[in-house]
Amino acid sequence: MTMDTTARPPRIAVCGAGTDAPEVNALAERVGREIASAGGVLICGGLGGVMEAAARGAASAGGLTVGVLPGTSARDANRWITLPLPTGMGEGRNVLVVRFADAVIAIGGEWGTLSEVALARKIGIPVVLLAPTLTRGLGLEEADTAEDAVRRALAAAKSR
Amino acid sequence: MTMDTTARPPRIAVCGAGTDAPEVNALAERVGREIASAGGVLICGGLGGVMEAAARGAASAGGLTVGVLPGTSARDANRWITLPLPTGMGEGRNVLVVRFADAVIAIGGEWGTLSEVALARKIGIPVVLLAPTLTRGLGLEEADTAEDAVRRALAAAKSR
Amino acid sequence: MTMDTTARPPRIAVCGAGTDAPEVNALAERVGREIASAGGVLICGGLGGVMEAAARGAASAGGLTVGVLPGTSARDANRWITLPLPTGMGEGRNVLVVRFADAVIAIGGEWGTLSEVALARKIGIPVVLLAPTLTRGLGLEEADTAEDAVRRALAAAKSR
Amino acid sequence: MTMDTTARPPRIAVCGAGTDAPEVNALAERVGREIASAGGVLICGGLGGVMEAAARGAASAGGLTVGVLPGTSARDANRWITLPLPTGMGEGRNVLVVRFADAVIAIGGEWGTLSEVALARKIGIPVVLLAPTLTRGLGLEEADTAEDAVRRALAAAKSR
Repeated sequence: MTMDTTARPPRIAVCGAGTDAPEVNALAERVGREIASAGGVLICGGLGGVMEAAARGAASAGGLTVGVLPGTSARDANRWITLPLPTGMGEGRNVLVVRFADAVIAIGGEWGTLSEVALARKIGIPVVLLAPTLTRGLGLEEADTAEDAVRRALAAAKSR
Repeated sequence: MTMDTTARPPRIAVCGAGTDAPEVNALAERVGREIASAGGVLICGGLGGVMEAAARGAASAGGLTVGVLPGTSARDANRWITLPLPTGMGEGRNVLVVRFADAVIAIGGEWGTLSEVALARKIGIPVVLLAPTLTRGLGLEEADTAEDAVRRALAAAKSR
Repeated sequence: MTMDTTARPPRIAVCGAGTDAPEVNALAERVGREIASAGGVLICGGLGGVMEAAARGAASAGGLTVGVLPGTSARDANRWITLPLPTGMGEGRNVLVVRFADAVIAIGGEWGTLSEVALARKIGIPVVLLAPTLTRGLGLEEADTAEDAVRRALAAAKSR
Repeated sequence: MTMDTTARPPRIAVCGAGTDAPEVNALAERVGREIASAGGVLICGGLGGVMEAAARGAASAGGLTVGVLPGTSARDANRWITLPLPTGMGEGRNVLVVRFADAVIAIGGEWGTLSEVALARKIGIPVVLLAPTLTRGLGLEEADTAEDAVRRALAAAKSR
């Protein structure tokens, strides 16, 4: 049995705030569902807010959900995470969230999300913005809808 | 849909040298197959030798195989890795291999494996040795066979 | 002999691009000199451009200069670095540049600098901007001159 | 002013347990004093036990003492540390303790020390043992006295 490595599922990171913001989190849930429906793996920070909503969406479509956690306990992961990865690196884990992915979708977001977007651009991982806040005005590609964001991210992932 | 987080698949790290050592690698392949057969996720360093043999075994049993890579490219992963995770941290990724796991099985091994065993003990991740070399003489639990190693690792993972 | 730990020298990180930009680098050199003249330790990424100019300024005033390097070799450090610290973590070292500091001065800068500014804000390290580019428009404190930037950074460092 | 980078002070890491073991810690204090007397910089984990004793020795001889801390606060450093470096990486900082050094002296020690010795060997940093415990039996160079350990470490650092 040989796996065609070009056939590995695309890994898409979804970044966003850990806060309870219904509209942004609804977008994140749709993004997660689309990633899983397209056969992708969801990478995220594993906690609440956008991370939890995206994982819920992906899990509802039967997808694999990876939580790259800042702390040392797998129990910190939200309940939609299949594969919790406790890094013990605090916010230093942000670079891993983006390195682990073929493309990044940043939804809304604050300082943590901005750091992930900047790190992704620095190391050459494609970024798509959705409903940008702090990340607006940086000249990055912006999607109109959750579906558009996932389509753009998958296209960028494929062309790497 | 709510996932019972206690039902998450156990994550078992397999550590060992990246070299071509037929007997040790045959053990690693059996360990990988047993982990997957028991419904576990294989975590490893993603490269050759014991890492590749364990991933091949797990993949042959339909399991999820995670490669925690030292470099920055997913292409460094051996072909049996489903989920390549390029850390860009060099040997600093060794602490992630063990942190990501519920229990560690060290097969043979040299300095890198010894560092993973020592880090696991330091942070409280259970370790089982199989065919130990540098790791012998440290007072750690030792398994007789590949099957025994996996049974012990799964039991230790469950009791955490 | 007991050291009064409140008397430890303040550690000020200077972040900026590794490129050859004469005006920005002249600012960085003055910032470095001011930090050392005030008894501070310069933390930077250890490479060229703003990092090298700041280190040259600090070294010319007899200060300690720390280079938090992305690679694995101390030889990567510019020649004004007294204490090269090769992390082997690539861009993942950016979080260390800011964590190691009591306050951060960001001069000009591109994606790497933006990631350091965002990480600093996320983890609560004070940030002062000087001649901001990508970092403009984020609502952060902005200094008028090199001297002003160092005065603000030292005041912020003291009040932590 | 040009610094001859070959004239940078050698950076010697001292690793050992964070526990209160009078004999071992007395050795560590002598090692720290010798490093500083020879113009070297002491790198250590910044906490108690061997780390504190080595830092006290180095500080008593006027040396620079660097504490590579697991936590996020500089306040965790023992009072003999001049330059506290909070990594926020937990035990993941062990790889940085050794990477930051030209050579490593391991005094006594438990799992954490063993991990540092193994990581150092894996990445090619010279190691000298003094009063080894868990690190015994690995075929590594062993010094007879504190002075001998520092002499060997400085020689190894120079020849890199």
